[in-house]
Amino acid sequence: MASGLEDELKRAIRTIPDYPKPGILFRDITTLLGDARAFRRAVDALVQPWAGGKIDKVAGMEARGFILGGAVAHQLSAGFVPIRKKGKLPYKTVSMAYELEYGTDEMEIHVDAVKPGERVILVDDLIATGGTAEGAVKLLQQVGAVIEAACFIVDLPELGGADKLRAMNVAVRTLVAFEGH
Amino acid sequence: MASGLEDELKRAIRTIPDYPKPGILFRDITTLLGDARAFRRAVDALVQPWAGGKIDKVAGMEARGFILGGAVAHQLSAGFVPIRKKGKLPYKTVSMAYELEYGTDEMEIHVDAVKPGERVILVDDLIATGGTAEGAVKLLQQVGAVIEAACFIVDLPELGGADKLRAMNVAVRTLVAFEGH
Repeated sequence: MASGLEDELKRAIRTIPDYPKPGILFRDITTLLGDARAFRRAVDALVQPWAGGKIDKVAGMEARGFILGGAVAHQLSAGFVPIRKKGKLPYKTVSMAYELEYGTDEMEIHVDAVKPGERVILVDDLIATGGTAEGAVKLLQQVGAVIEAACFIVDLPELGGADKLRAMNVAVRTLVAFEGH
Repeated sequence: MASGLEDELKRAIRTIPDYPKPGILFRDITTLLGDARAFRRAVDALVQPWAGGKIDKVAGMEARGFILGGAVAHQLSAGFVPIRKKGKLPYKTVSMAYELEYGTDEMEIHVDAVKPGERVILVDDLIATGGTAEGAVKLLQQVGAVIEAACFIVDLPELGGADKLRAMNVAVRTLVAFEGH
């Protein structure tokens, strides 16, 4: 990836010190989403390897993953699959526990959201420890998806999330890396 | 709008009886989102009047409004502005109470999400009573947005939400109407 793009995207991301707690530098992606040029460049660059139309579905995780996921699905002319917090989907679901910083939570997907063998890209704005993405990958595989890649605008490499996904044989694509967390 | 499109979109929406409670026919949009052709046709038709590039920002409400909002922002080459539930946005916010079926809740927007005078389209998948959309319109106006339109794939006209927005001088565009609720 051209470093010009990484620089532009980094400048479009706002860093909020001591949020949500002292010592954390929070990477606020909303300023990038609100910047029409940066948002479009990020979406297009993120899925450029799959621009040929080989992807059936784009999956995104509630809530921020829905924004980028909707845009990426539109860009690839693919369908969109929501992965939601427990109790939010109206039809039959499969659920999966995933690890949070403290304790666990559950995420769900509709049982018929993906047809077996469909090629799926998982999208989120940022990967940190990768607990949520790991759960989403397992959930998608459980309903029969072939995971082509997991794509994130921001990587926090020190937290190891991308490595965790690669250890599951999932290709990972990111556009911007921030040191520290 | 061509009725052929309305028919196609209606067929792509799943109706779940007695959800979330007896007597309600829940219109499940996830089947439309997952249908690549229907999703693309809905996004493109929804914002066709603004395809010339006159829109600065697309605003979407957490959580389902983020999916369509991300896609519409990408389609219009606009920025995206998230309107979130209280306590989810990391920077300085403006908040607004809105009415739920029972009681009220609060939604928030970043104070600098829109520059005064920017032209904004509000997007959500469905309009029912319009309480959330009304709150979102007021919030956007409070930070200086010029609301060009509020766009929804599904209208439940008997619940009066679209009329509520029109009474606020907001142009409303919908693609599919279902009687009953």
